[in-house]
Amino acid sequence: MAVERRSASSYRLHNVFLAGTAAVAGPKEGQGPLSGYFDRVWPDEGSEYPSYEKAEQALLQESETLALKKTGLEWSDIDLVLGGDLLDQLITTNFEARQHQRPLFGVFSACASFTEGLAIAGLMLGQGGPNTAMVTAVSHHLSAERQFRFPLELGYQRAPTASWTATAAGAAIVQRSSSDLQLDSITIGRVIDFGCRDPNDMPTAMAPAAVDTIRRHFQALGESEDDYDAIVTGDLGRFGVDLAQHMALDEYHLRLEQKLQDCGQLLYHIDEQDVHNGGSGPGCSAGVFSGYLARKLRDGSLKRILLVATGALFSPKSYQQGESIPAIAHAVAITRQGERS
Amino acid sequence: MAVERRSASSYRLHNVFLAGTAAVAGPKEGQGPLSGYFDRVWPDEGSEYPSYEKAEQALLQESETLALKKTGLEWSDIDLVLGGDLLDQLITTNFEARQHQRPLFGVFSACASFTEGLAIAGLMLGQGGPNTAMVTAVSHHLSAERQFRFPLELGYQRAPTASWTATAAGAAIVQRSSSDLQLDSITIGRVIDFGCRDPNDMPTAMAPAAVDTIRRHFQALGESEDDYDAIVTGDLGRFGVDLAQHMALDEYHLRLEQKLQDCGQLLYHIDEQDVHNGGSGPGCSAGVFSGYLARKLRDGSLKRILLVATGALFSPKSYQQGESIPAIAHAVAITRQGERS
Repeated sequence: MAVERRSASSYRLHNVFLAGTAAVAGPKEGQGPLSGYFDRVWPDEGSEYPSYEKAEQALLQESETLALKKTGLEWSDIDLVLGGDLLDQLITTNFEARQHQRPLFGVFSACASFTEGLAIAGLMLGQGGPNTAMVTAVSHHLSAERQFRFPLELGYQRAPTASWTATAAGAAIVQRSSSDLQLDSITIGRVIDFGCRDPNDMPTAMAPAAVDTIRRHFQALGESEDDYDAIVTGDLGRFGVDLAQHMALDEYHLRLEQKLQDCGQLLYHIDEQDVHNGGSGPGCSAGVFSGYLARKLRDGSLKRILLVATGALFSPKSYQQGESIPAIAHAVAITRQGERS
Repeated sequence: MAVERRSASSYRLHNVFLAGTAAVAGPKEGQGPLSGYFDRVWPDEGSEYPSYEKAEQALLQESETLALKKTGLEWSDIDLVLGGDLLDQLITTNFEARQHQRPLFGVFSACASFTEGLAIAGLMLGQGGPNTAMVTAVSHHLSAERQFRFPLELGYQRAPTASWTATAAGAAIVQRSSSDLQLDSITIGRVIDFGCRDPNDMPTAMAPAAVDTIRRHFQALGESEDDYDAIVTGDLGRFGVDLAQHMALDEYHLRLEQKLQDCGQLLYHIDEQDVHNGGSGPGCSAGVFSGYLARKLRDGSLKRILLVATGALFSPKSYQQGESIPAIAHAVAITRQGERS
């Protein structure tokens, strides 16, 4: 049995592997601590493209091309693309898909779209489904800023809890053929709304969703933080990680502090790079995983991780209408082959 | 084997069934030819709600509640919700999901989101995956108009090829337990861009994607139009159906004219209701299928149909930037139980 249901939201997977992963990052991300782990760092935000949106599409395309190259696959070997981004109507994913014309499912969990794609791929690659899927997520700082916040030219001040949308793309190829990394279990997120209303404070909105998913994952699979070398949330940043640690301890007696890391914290030198709370955007967890974490798993410095990307599910309109900010987190566990039976 | 791969995009499914389906429609849709097939018709566009966006959430919620009621299931029986809508960042699907808090995957293929959800559910409900999924799609005329076009108060003139975004929601429960309707095969769409640039002419942009998917479905499964009582596209409307028929005949020698119907045409009295080309929006194919087509299958007047929802993958920004309008179509074949071995 390729997919073993452990609860309504959690599944153990067998014979689902990650082959090539690739990450491309923008210049600011390339000056951060993970610089050496990206497959390519852009010298600028894509000044050769006629718009930020076109630059974002190019970023995505590069990550896909590199992931294929690393695995020795062609586009024709890919049965299915599962991709997400932050722009209205997923235009990055959809417009970029014109060039490959492979079967496509657009996915959206905001900044958790990468783990949504991995989880869907994992659940599908049971016996007889698609053989090979490409999972992608991307964001571009400049296209996101003008859609969600203000034109950059305004030069407004950022709140300390504000996140910095990363210019980054990650692509991972999921397959049934054995490879060095195994996608061994997943937990699907649910929408959690703690009533936060400040769009400059995503960490507070998203931390409860991350804790809810981690807790349900452990419970359904009979696991604890001891079963992982690292539990890596997406985009909680420095305030969110702190909040998640306290919440996990106070409400569920989970001691995560030794194991908890966060893609938004890992991506930048937070104190020096003026990113306030840390990085965010679908490309943040996709890029940090596909670049840094996948390499750490491959070189043996990590043996098993739980990647818990988080997404804040608001829009500029919902915020203007006074709505709160619901959030979601999807978790995928990835093991270096040979580390677990 | 629960899922049989026939090509990179087409799969034969075994033991995947549709249980309860429910459709809720707005007042204009309730004056159309399908009036008697909806589970509920709203007397107005939701004037009791503080915003059109809130009304759209309520429409979705009603369709879900009715689908559960018809099957005798509770929310706790649903392992997974796969939902899509047209609003930026899927706020309808995501905000509504606060009330049920079931595991959620947001999906986006614009007006083809309903068949994307059904196809994902079908591929997942292989051995050991989720037991039961709820697939939804929704649109609201008034929230869509102000996001994509103009404030209604402007009273602008509509082009003859313009579509009318439907106020409608459809929900379908997909399960492995035997039921009266079977989801027997799917074909995943790919992004097709014929270079159309007129946001008031979706039919021309979407017809090539519908034909591409129908052709690939037939080819991979060794089928033809003779294997279906009806091939029902989503949202092509009167111009798009005509174009699709000619294109299928001229390019692929497919004679669809006897079998081709369209959700956007079925939903309204096109000549009398001032909807120009016909209906559109994710709720159009979701509502027409969950209301009308599912009943026609259940009462035996249809035995097998191919539902080919189509989506135009543009955003107001991509249009303003002079981009063309790519499109996608996902197909699902649904059979009345006992009609095929």
